[in-house]
Amino acid sequence: MTDGLIRSWIDSANADDCNFPLNNLPYGVFSADDGVKKCCVAIGDRIIDLATLEEAELLNSSGTFALDALNDFMALGTDVWAQVRAQLTDLLKEGGNDWLRTNDSLMKRAVLQQADVSMHMPFRVAEFTDFYAGRNHATNVGTMFRGKENALPPNWLHIPIGYNGRASTVVVSGTDIHRPNGQLKKPDDRSPEFGPCKRLDIELEMGAVVGTGSKMGSPVTVEQADSMIFGYVLLNDWSARDIQAWEYQPLGPFQAKAFATSISPWVVTKAALEPFRISTPEREIDLLPHLRDAGPMLYDIDLEVALTPDGETKETVISRTNYCEMYYSSAQQLAHHSSSGCAMNVGDLLGSGTISGASPDSYGSMLEMCWGGENSIDLGEGISRTFIEDGDRLTLRGHCQGAGYRIGFGECSGEILPARDKH
Amino acid sequence: MTDGLIRSWIDSANADDCNFPLNNLPYGVFSADDGVKKCCVAIGDRIIDLATLEEAELLNSSGTFALDALNDFMALGTDVWAQVRAQLTDLLKEGGNDWLRTNDSLMKRAVLQQADVSMHMPFRVAEFTDFYAGRNHATNVGTMFRGKENALPPNWLHIPIGYNGRASTVVVSGTDIHRPNGQLKKPDDRSPEFGPCKRLDIELEMGAVVGTGSKMGSPVTVEQADSMIFGYVLLNDWSARDIQAWEYQPLGPFQAKAFATSISPWVVTKAALEPFRISTPEREIDLLPHLRDAGPMLYDIDLEVALTPDGETKETVISRTNYCEMYYSSAQQLAHHSSSGCAMNVGDLLGSGTISGASPDSYGSMLEMCWGGENSIDLGEGISRTFIEDGDRLTLRGHCQGAGYRIGFGECSGEILPARDKH
Repeated sequence: MTDGLIRSWIDSANADDCNFPLNNLPYGVFSADDGVKKCCVAIGDRIIDLATLEEAELLNSSGTFALDALNDFMALGTDVWAQVRAQLTDLLKEGGNDWLRTNDSLMKRAVLQQADVSMHMPFRVAEFTDFYAGRNHATNVGTMFRGKENALPPNWLHIPIGYNGRASTVVVSGTDIHRPNGQLKKPDDRSPEFGPCKRLDIELEMGAVVGTGSKMGSPVTVEQADSMIFGYVLLNDWSARDIQAWEYQPLGPFQAKAFATSISPWVVTKAALEPFRISTPEREIDLLPHLRDAGPMLYDIDLEVALTPDGETKETVISRTNYCEMYYSSAQQLAHHSSSGCAMNVGDLLGSGTISGASPDSYGSMLEMCWGGENSIDLGEGISRTFIEDGDRLTLRGHCQGAGYRIGFGECSGEILPARDKH
Repeated sequence: MTDGLIRSWIDSANADDCNFPLNNLPYGVFSADDGVKKCCVAIGDRIIDLATLEEAELLNSSGTFALDALNDFMALGTDVWAQVRAQLTDLLKEGGNDWLRTNDSLMKRAVLQQADVSMHMPFRVAEFTDFYAGRNHATNVGTMFRGKENALPPNWLHIPIGYNGRASTVVVSGTDIHRPNGQLKKPDDRSPEFGPCKRLDIELEMGAVVGTGSKMGSPVTVEQADSMIFGYVLLNDWSARDIQAWEYQPLGPFQAKAFATSISPWVVTKAALEPFRISTPEREIDLLPHLRDAGPMLYDIDLEVALTPDGETKETVISRTNYCEMYYSSAQQLAHHSSSGCAMNVGDLLGSGTISGASPDSYGSMLEMCWGGENSIDLGEGISRTFIEDGDRLTLRGHCQGAGYRIGFGECSGEILPARDKH
């Protein structure tokens, strides 16, 4: 762990606004012109082909980097994660092991321009669980739907409320999303109709990636849960608010959330985030022992949401907030998830819940920004929005700010295409 | 398709109360003494080792039966399902192809006693979705929780309400289940406590196994959905009612259902069920076009639940009902599941929802049988229950009754072990 930039011989990694300095080394899955998917890390404006370094016997990764997903590497466990991080750092830092830097043939094969490769889903999502653990968001949504006095459900301060989401439609940033069709019924309609969602929204979240699993019948502590998390991604939980309103009682959101969830291509490791750990907010009511904080397990991550309207090239940042707004950490969510004996697996993805600050310019969903459609969100040049229109692009970004460097997550972006014909 | 028994040269398959006549041929995964998992079908009191028949080039199954799960075979699609069923029927029927019957060496390797093998999970569950599509069950539970006037939620007659369940804890019949711990709070308690569930329950369901998938963004019709279903299993959706009551608002059941779901080891194919197709009940309100019935897609399956109390050997049948009680078919559920563009995958498992008849002796959950704990369920010999006690064994059974034969599902059974220590 360090307080300052670790300088690399890859110059672009040393710029103070670079998302991917040597301190970061986020993992992803790329393909070059041959289309073969392999694991990589990002550094500066380059990526490092880890399968090639592995073949050259420079990494302790047991052949897992030649695969098309990080799952097998993650399953090797925390000791290997630390060893490989140390090996990569040594190979890439100024004054370290010069094996790679001085080997022209290896350099040519292993160090590629980010601009020349395509990024893919970094891991196979085993199962996806989404939480509702941001207090401002829960209070805002609760106020809109149930009134100010009943905003927070009675269980909210005792357990991180979550629901199982759909893993089959988690996609990597850059994947365009068709507006979903679904059953819609306005309060005064006699019957529902089937058609395109009219209140399409985002949810700004972080996703925790489970790197090592737990057995059925064997709950884990908050401390154990923290050690099972491999890293974090940006996550946009696209939401069809009108489909949700009609379907979600009594068993929760279903098709309103099942059409797409986008994640960033880069998994930023817990190791890279270490210097930015912060505590959850003070507890209004003490948590029961199995969920109590076991040290600071949130992170100081600056987040923003940008909207590029249909037909425009200029984006507007519509929200700025920070991951520290969460009431529950991912470790607490994972401990709760296992509390009944539920088995957790390599590649499970836990959505933090929508991250909203206290003011409208820091809300994590357009539902909150436009307060259920009452206000419009000004995008300048005479353009405004309540919910997302066809052709709009939504982009999440995030980074931790260190002294003279940042740990960036890159982008999580997607454009909304028109609904497909109903059949 | 046939109206009568297809006689096999395996005598035990011809008894009129046999679950597994030649008309059935349910698929499973077994291991013999060497512990190697392979695919099989059941017939009479035997199983047929399909990997061995495949090796002998008797089946069009492309090497998929030597694997430890049915997923790759299912993915081959409906034409192959039909071809292999025809090949097996020909090999096993009286007067058919006598290649197997007359080949002693092959017989010895391929035809094993069921009593001599262990059964395993028949397929890898990709994702598990559970529905709430039985009208009597929804009305009973709604009446208990919201009163008679508000029993059915407003959306219930328009969409098959479902929620995503947890795939990681779907287990095969015979797996014992630890009573889960969780947060519990009675209405008059000031705060929740963490401890063993006190209201542990079953839900009698059928599970539909998705055999071929659909693409993200491409909803399927009810007719297409029916053709994607490979077969059906018995399914017990174990439920912790007290954990559920505290956690389920506003986002649905989570840990209350995540500790275990049991299924029968045998997947009864849609082909075997063909003669028993029946229609869903008459519609009180017309369904929207995308969910309308496209022919009879329920099945006439007699079901029962038996309870063997702790320390006893004699079981009591506590419920008898029929799958025809469902308001929505699995095909309608699958079409709804894909309606937003959600991708469906090989190995997805759809729980029908609890199957309750109209009277207490036909209810599919103990919650309904004991009416929320008000009545006790008499098991004879001075023993009674409201919810499940430690050491109790619950067993689901089901079969279709044909003329002189039955298509049986076998059993889905599990014993409840005491809760593990909290940490």
